[in-house]
Amino acid sequence: MAAEVIEGSHERWMDRALDLALRGTGHASPNPRVGCVIVDGDRILAEGWHAYPGAPHAEAMALSLLDRSTITPSTTLYVNLEPCSHHGRTPPCADAIVASGIRNVVTGIGDPNPLVSGTGIRRLRDHGIAVETDVREEECRWINRTFMHHVTTLTPYLVLKIAQSLDGCVARTATAPYPVTGAGSRRRVHALRAEFDAVMTGIGTVLADDPLLTVRDVEGRNPLRIVLDTHLHLPLQSAIVRTAQDVPTLCLCSPDSASGPSAEPLRDHGIDVIGIPVRDRHIDLGEAMRLLGGKNVASVMCEAGPRVTASLLEHGLVQELRLLTAPFIMGDGLRWNGGLLADSTWRLHDVETIDADIHTTLIRE
Amino acid sequence: MAAEVIEGSHERWMDRALDLALRGTGHASPNPRVGCVIVDGDRILAEGWHAYPGAPHAEAMALSLLDRSTITPSTTLYVNLEPCSHHGRTPPCADAIVASGIRNVVTGIGDPNPLVSGTGIRRLRDHGIAVETDVREEECRWINRTFMHHVTTLTPYLVLKIAQSLDGCVARTATAPYPVTGAGSRRRVHALRAEFDAVMTGIGTVLADDPLLTVRDVEGRNPLRIVLDTHLHLPLQSAIVRTAQDVPTLCLCSPDSASGPSAEPLRDHGIDVIGIPVRDRHIDLGEAMRLLGGKNVASVMCEAGPRVTASLLEHGLVQELRLLTAPFIMGDGLRWNGGLLADSTWRLHDVETIDADIHTTLIRE
Repeated sequence: MAAEVIEGSHERWMDRALDLALRGTGHASPNPRVGCVIVDGDRILAEGWHAYPGAPHAEAMALSLLDRSTITPSTTLYVNLEPCSHHGRTPPCADAIVASGIRNVVTGIGDPNPLVSGTGIRRLRDHGIAVETDVREEECRWINRTFMHHVTTLTPYLVLKIAQSLDGCVARTATAPYPVTGAGSRRRVHALRAEFDAVMTGIGTVLADDPLLTVRDVEGRNPLRIVLDTHLHLPLQSAIVRTAQDVPTLCLCSPDSASGPSAEPLRDHGIDVIGIPVRDRHIDLGEAMRLLGGKNVASVMCEAGPRVTASLLEHGLVQELRLLTAPFIMGDGLRWNGGLLADSTWRLHDVETIDADIHTTLIRE
Repeated sequence: MAAEVIEGSHERWMDRALDLALRGTGHASPNPRVGCVIVDGDRILAEGWHAYPGAPHAEAMALSLLDRSTITPSTTLYVNLEPCSHHGRTPPCADAIVASGIRNVVTGIGDPNPLVSGTGIRRLRDHGIAVETDVREEECRWINRTFMHHVTTLTPYLVLKIAQSLDGCVARTATAPYPVTGAGSRRRVHALRAEFDAVMTGIGTVLADDPLLTVRDVEGRNPLRIVLDTHLHLPLQSAIVRTAQDVPTLCLCSPDSASGPSAEPLRDHGIDVIGIPVRDRHIDLGEAMRLLGGKNVASVMCEAGPRVTASLLEHGLVQELRLLTAPFIMGDGLRWNGGLLADSTWRLHDVETIDADIHTTLIRE
């Protein structure tokens, strides 16, 4: 007997599952962010979430906290992603649900992982469990967009951050840092760093701005730092090198540079130096993305200058744009699209204000 | 005895006065948009608005529709702008209110017109009327921002419209029209044309795009069209010239051109051709603004190319920016800030989405 459903309750409980899923932010990757709530009527019986790779899946955690004697025919399990059906580091959640005696499951989206993709839901239905799917589908897709991109392309989901003036300038000159956006926007950027697996920049930005690329002013763990540095010009006295013992740091350079004399001192400072094939006198960014994907870096936020920005766009490697626009016209400044020949269409996901700035999120069409 | 006020009722009735004031949009200028509502408790006794110059003021219209026998000590008159105290084309509203027997008045903002400025409210109070001021001050200031600018500076309030790509490009090349933004944004631009007194462009845009600059697809009257054309290159076969018998059109050029051979054929087509002093080989835009202000053009929306846009910004003549941003990166295109040396700070007034586009309104700080 399927549960009787109060109108809107599916959405209400899926929102709770999504809230729980967010607890994995910054830690679950490259696994998805998943939350699970087991309810009966309007009463929560147990909850769980996926905290980090190797930790129990959300469903397993919730089931482990569930008093089995409270299960009735109307007990329902909500989870934002299709339960897994394969043996990974943990046993299949679909089997655990079947074994629990729960007769109703509601999911958000299917798991794009070719090892799961539909088989989890089939397993449940084969055992007579009533399964509803596609509840809060859009929200479920959004919180696991980096996971879904990574698992299907084996490259990271790349977010391009641009802090610009109203007229598309990012700095006064190419050689000095310039705070375009306000303190609120900078805090937002730090929060985004904590959300994504890695933050990437180019050697030009390191030499001009000497950034730290860590998470400050907000809660959250530091992401992996990646420097694109074909000829390995990264200075030993830079803020990034001086903090590399504390913050994981990766330097991508040409194969020659990776085996040349500049590499060893950087490695001594704790930096992982890796050679990438060169194309047109720069490291091949497509190859760089494949390398990162293979290292389980599922998401990267790029905070770089016009050259790296233009290269990533021209190679079609960007999935998401974050434009932080300060309300002033700079006029004669350095533009983020300097020399860019690419023509690309984007879909507006969200626009909001942060103090005096405008924060626009766009997704690649 | 002052009226007893139900909490929030001042705001509620001022909102009604503002709604009525909007009926003057496109017609009241260079006079302000003013609405008036006379209430007792939660009952509307009479309403009025200022429809066009020479028509009764909002208060006079409402009073003319009011049955005087319904006035009680709690009857209150709401008006978004301080009632006038001087004899213009119509007698002073402050005197009419005093004569009506109404004992309570609530206003939005003071009239910046040096002929009124505080004296209207003083006249009311001198006659024992209870006056509350500054209700919905911000909204009242917004709907009469063009009036207030014009009456205090004697130049038009200038709105700069820019339809751009995400990376600040306005066209593929300087010589062909290019629809950057979508149909919804174009309708919004037409609605804005109907709202402002005039729409202005440069001869470069006329030669490249051959625009009509009229109001289409939405309700509203056509604004005055203004072409900045130093050397009077406006082609007789252009859409603007061909429609000049139906749509008021003004061409601003050098004094030499205004008295030269190109002027007469344009005047024959119904175009008003006026010479403006030249500075740095172009007509002096500050002089142009003073001329327009003197002709009771209180607001102008400029839809022009990068040269006119940059000149207006560099001369500090722009009060409001309307950025219509389409969600694509054009790359190698014509930028609206090409060659712009100005550095100016703006305050974000509003950001909204129109279909896939982003509409940002900013006010000069």
